[in-house]
Amino acid sequence: MTITPELHNSRFMKAARCEATDCTPVWIMRQAGRYLPEYMAVRSKTTFIDLCKTPELAAEVTLTAREVLGVDAAILFADLLPILQPMGFDLEYVKGEGPVIHNPLLEASQIDRVKPVEDVSVLGYVFDAVKLIRKQLPADIPLLGFAGAPFTLASYAIEGGGSKSYIRTKTLMYTDEDAWKALMDRLVESLSRYLLAQIEAGCQAVQIFDSWAGCLSPSDYRRYVQPYTKKLIDSIPDETPVINFLTGNPALLPDQVAAGGQVVGIDWRIDFADARKIIGDNRAIQGNLDPISLYADLKTLEARAKDVLDANASHPGHIFNLGHGVHPDMNPDNVKALVKIVHELSAK
Amino acid sequence: MTITPELHNSRFMKAARCEATDCTPVWIMRQAGRYLPEYMAVRSKTTFIDLCKTPELAAEVTLTAREVLGVDAAILFADLLPILQPMGFDLEYVKGEGPVIHNPLLEASQIDRVKPVEDVSVLGYVFDAVKLIRKQLPADIPLLGFAGAPFTLASYAIEGGGSKSYIRTKTLMYTDEDAWKALMDRLVESLSRYLLAQIEAGCQAVQIFDSWAGCLSPSDYRRYVQPYTKKLIDSIPDETPVINFLTGNPALLPDQVAAGGQVVGIDWRIDFADARKIIGDNRAIQGNLDPISLYADLKTLEARAKDVLDANASHPGHIFNLGHGVHPDMNPDNVKALVKIVHELSAK
Repeated sequence: MTITPELHNSRFMKAARCEATDCTPVWIMRQAGRYLPEYMAVRSKTTFIDLCKTPELAAEVTLTAREVLGVDAAILFADLLPILQPMGFDLEYVKGEGPVIHNPLLEASQIDRVKPVEDVSVLGYVFDAVKLIRKQLPADIPLLGFAGAPFTLASYAIEGGGSKSYIRTKTLMYTDEDAWKALMDRLVESLSRYLLAQIEAGCQAVQIFDSWAGCLSPSDYRRYVQPYTKKLIDSIPDETPVINFLTGNPALLPDQVAAGGQVVGIDWRIDFADARKIIGDNRAIQGNLDPISLYADLKTLEARAKDVLDANASHPGHIFNLGHGVHPDMNPDNVKALVKIVHELSAK
Repeated sequence: MTITPELHNSRFMKAARCEATDCTPVWIMRQAGRYLPEYMAVRSKTTFIDLCKTPELAAEVTLTAREVLGVDAAILFADLLPILQPMGFDLEYVKGEGPVIHNPLLEASQIDRVKPVEDVSVLGYVFDAVKLIRKQLPADIPLLGFAGAPFTLASYAIEGGGSKSYIRTKTLMYTDEDAWKALMDRLVESLSRYLLAQIEAGCQAVQIFDSWAGCLSPSDYRRYVQPYTKKLIDSIPDETPVINFLTGNPALLPDQVAAGGQVVGIDWRIDFADARKIIGDNRAIQGNLDPISLYADLKTLEARAKDVLDANASHPGHIFNLGHGVHPDMNPDNVKALVKIVHELSAK
């Protein structure tokens, strides 16, 4: 995918390459979400999964959120899990309960049931949404694609839903490393095709969400997870920045960095300045305000945002974000205020 | 409380002082729990809270677990939350749901409702249990008392139950630091009296559980939590070791260490050798096997336990434990096997 000069020189893309910008770019994880009345207006007419699968609606909520917040990047409205459907998992979004997989991988012996996605056109609605969004976005606003990281998707496929302790996932990992490897390889193969097709359709950068890897010890992450995340990131051409996001365990950071990604996404559990020391000067960092800061009064919110900005003041490679997604009961005015605060405080 | 030579020279107490032992002492968090048939036999005759409040039954499950596992310490069977009752919170253990506080602290203005516990004899059933247990324990087996850390109890008092994101707790902390300070001060005062009375009744060491502090950034931990944990630990006389346990965020470790405690309790999210570097040579470390290791086959379990032991091989200050509590569906034979593995592998 060729990239226009406007996009190449956009705040987000420059910061991702650690080049100086007029002010720090900002976007908000889950920015097109339930806290926004504009989103709820669309969502009220359909189901969550139909919203994901209808390119016009997915495009609408993506574009509206970008515009009302005034953020420096749009992120495709989609979900982490639908890629599991063509891999053989029976995924359903149950009202009030969230996603459920009716046939989770309970035994290592079932691994041959899991098929890599050979032809990603079964997820064509995602790429159609990307095309629609790119067409309507301002010329200097990049569109981010995304996917779940192999570990996070493997956990979902094995647990069948959310989990507190990842008992089944870790038990399979510990007791049948061959089956684990087979599962992770098939996920990497599928996810790579999926992300490349998003880029081909018009995304300028992609984020990999390892939302659940924080439950792992560093040695388990190195042995069972990092090689697969690295293989996935290595499969993305260098000209498209990858945001390697992981939450829940700052002790994984050195190994997360070694897995790759021009941008390292971190949560609030680590001081930004310490993260910069570990990550070094050659990568951009995305993060890392505690999302609960948005519930405080504006003066406190500003002080907390300033702490994050100040911690990176001497380095151009910073994309401001929360350390995790914005909460559904958030007042959208506070999110808008945060975007303004970041732009104003960081203006050169 | 004077301590006998047998207790002073027990494996656990020596390791807590970083003195050499014949093998590494081990106990298991939540060792007297639902996974044990001996526990379930007692539990089936009563409710959870009545079990906590009946010294003979609490003593029975404490002693039985110690004995069937062959561990090097007993830990008082009790719960973190009943101390909130005399502080003015209406606590109920709802069947199938766990503990619920019917009058959580919703507004900073309600802070004057919260009273420090002046007279801990309202928790007399705990001290009676301690006396009964101490009388029946082998002479060389220490009895551990425990309490929740101020932050973990404050979270419970504010959220009214378990929480995923600690929205109310952090919002109060961020927006009304005076109210937060008042709440934490009253908790520290109450918890200090509670722990001192446990020690007076016969405990040789105490563990402070900061089970929920992992949701905090290091700067928030330093500002809003550490001074109170430190004050609580400082109030315990030096001759009684304090295990300062925190789970969920290894980036807090340097500040956790600075809060005090002769023993630092860590979870599996950090490599033991890295924790030793941060903690230094003057403190014992308790931990840190991932509890899910117990679901693996015995060969894998042994290899994983060996990794933890080897990481501290050159230092005497190690109390082996899981990084968090044992799960209710665990096979007790695996826990017994782990205790044996730790003793055998570490025997000098």
